[in-house]
Amino acid sequence: MTKERSTIVLFTFVPKEQQQRRLLDEFPDVTFLFTYHDKSRLEEAEIIVTYGEDLAEKDIDRAKKLKWIMVASAGIEKMPASTIQKKGITVSNVRGIHKTPMSESVLAHLLALKRSLPFIYEQQRKGEWNRKSGATELAGSTALILGPGAIGSEIGRLLQAFGVRTIGCNRSGNNANFMEKTVPYPELMAVLPEADVVISVLPSTPETRHLLTEAHFYAMKDNAVFMNFGRGDLVSDQVLIHALEEKLISWAVLDVFETEPLPKDHPFWTMDNVIVSPHVSSHSTKYVERSLDIFIPNLKKWLKGKRDFTNIVNLERGY
Amino acid sequence: MTKERSTIVLFTFVPKEQQQRRLLDEFPDVTFLFTYHDKSRLEEAEIIVTYGEDLAEKDIDRAKKLKWIMVASAGIEKMPASTIQKKGITVSNVRGIHKTPMSESVLAHLLALKRSLPFIYEQQRKGEWNRKSGATELAGSTALILGPGAIGSEIGRLLQAFGVRTIGCNRSGNNANFMEKTVPYPELMAVLPEADVVISVLPSTPETRHLLTEAHFYAMKDNAVFMNFGRGDLVSDQVLIHALEEKLISWAVLDVFETEPLPKDHPFWTMDNVIVSPHVSSHSTKYVERSLDIFIPNLKKWLKGKRDFTNIVNLERGY
Repeated sequence: MTKERSTIVLFTFVPKEQQQRRLLDEFPDVTFLFTYHDKSRLEEAEIIVTYGEDLAEKDIDRAKKLKWIMVASAGIEKMPASTIQKKGITVSNVRGIHKTPMSESVLAHLLALKRSLPFIYEQQRKGEWNRKSGATELAGSTALILGPGAIGSEIGRLLQAFGVRTIGCNRSGNNANFMEKTVPYPELMAVLPEADVVISVLPSTPETRHLLTEAHFYAMKDNAVFMNFGRGDLVSDQVLIHALEEKLISWAVLDVFETEPLPKDHPFWTMDNVIVSPHVSSHSTKYVERSLDIFIPNLKKWLKGKRDFTNIVNLERGY
Repeated sequence: MTKERSTIVLFTFVPKEQQQRRLLDEFPDVTFLFTYHDKSRLEEAEIIVTYGEDLAEKDIDRAKKLKWIMVASAGIEKMPASTIQKKGITVSNVRGIHKTPMSESVLAHLLALKRSLPFIYEQQRKGEWNRKSGATELAGSTALILGPGAIGSEIGRLLQAFGVRTIGCNRSGNNANFMEKTVPYPELMAVLPEADVVISVLPSTPETRHLLTEAHFYAMKDNAVFMNFGRGDLVSDQVLIHALEEKLISWAVLDVFETEPLPKDHPFWTMDNVIVSPHVSSHSTKYVERSLDIFIPNLKKWLKGKRDFTNIVNLERGY
């Protein structure tokens, strides 16, 4: 009897066998539907676990029993926020689990450029012993981190270990962890000329959309490395392409783009001062496991009628 | 008069204009000969500054006034040690200045593999948006550092910042900085199975030559990354090629080789689990400047008749 009325959790992706087992063992009375983008049983689901890119407004309308969406991702900009909010559906995410893979990706790309890894790999392909790599050092540089939250501060911590001076830039200008100083957005222009590296991990919000303009790139050092690991709409393609063509900066390392997947004929693919990373900086073989580490305690609370979740998303702020 | 009898310092490489200027300004009474592998004035030199690979036994015999060889490098294995020693010539090097570029190179290569940078670069060349990068994390792994001296400990410090457990291995087994534990060479076999990364920064000495044998590679994890940033004779080509062909380990990142330059037809160039770095991990745009930071105080002491240099090389130990 209880079984039939049990809570139904619909996954729109398929966790590995052992991860499914972990859930089934922890929650014998819950019905889990592990599907691959299959919404045929949407009407029954009280809880949906999704990567956040497969729910349209009509899906939310159809899901009459839906009370909680757990997004196994950080960004929620592809979800129909106002419909979800209107229906009083709780949204939670996995904020925090991207910290390790993302900060490792940022450091990997940055050190790779400083130590000339693209050059070294290319010489190997050509079979040439060429020692004129032009390698330089990360130590002693200054980094500006746009969005020094959980991920940005972790990047700051690692950069400081390499002897890098860190400046944070956020909405409040309140001092953030592992930043030597933090400035609010309006002071961005003033600190840009100090930075050898400009790293964004900002989410997409009305405030961050096209935050960086042509003037910002003119203010950067001409040997600056710009790294966008937040969201692609931080800067328009037009502004960024201009900056790269005019060599206003030396490199752009991009994990996110205005249009994803990046279109086949997009100039970024072939520009010699651009690294295209296909939005994988948060990927990790440990990703789903960590998402479950967040989801399981929340689901336990849910079943007891408690709603004091970790990682509740504020749909108005957008993160 | 003094001028004519002034100390003559022969450089066998040519520092940049501003570096030459720095020396001339500091030592107006010293005669500096900045040449490119030109030994025509060898007989006059009291001091030679060299990268250490251009002095043969006959050069030492010819250099009747030579009293001090300053090697702007770490390894002295290409120098005619016994002749130098017999003639009582002092040798000093630039030990310590490689710490920053080398540890950055090691971390760059290691993070690049963990975060799938070779894959990402290749997809960009092909113009393909492929997110199946297989990226994993450095955090949580265990690293074994062969030779945890100045450079090895700096690598250890950075690895620890990334949440890596560090084990050192040296001659004495005495605890080294930034190592959670340190074992002597005979215990190497016992700790190898724990290591996800095995990094050597060992110099070339009779003791380290072919220190690693086939058995050591069988003892490593099959997903271990082996990084040789010390000297190429740590392991024979034959042993290493066998280990890579048999997939006893997952990657070798090699900055040093038994034969350098690596011969055109060497299998390492094209093996898909080898990164060939042409002995550039210590290179840096700041290299010569830092060498002068060591040379200048020593030269001041020399001119005052003092011999308590920093970085005197013990020719018998070989470093």
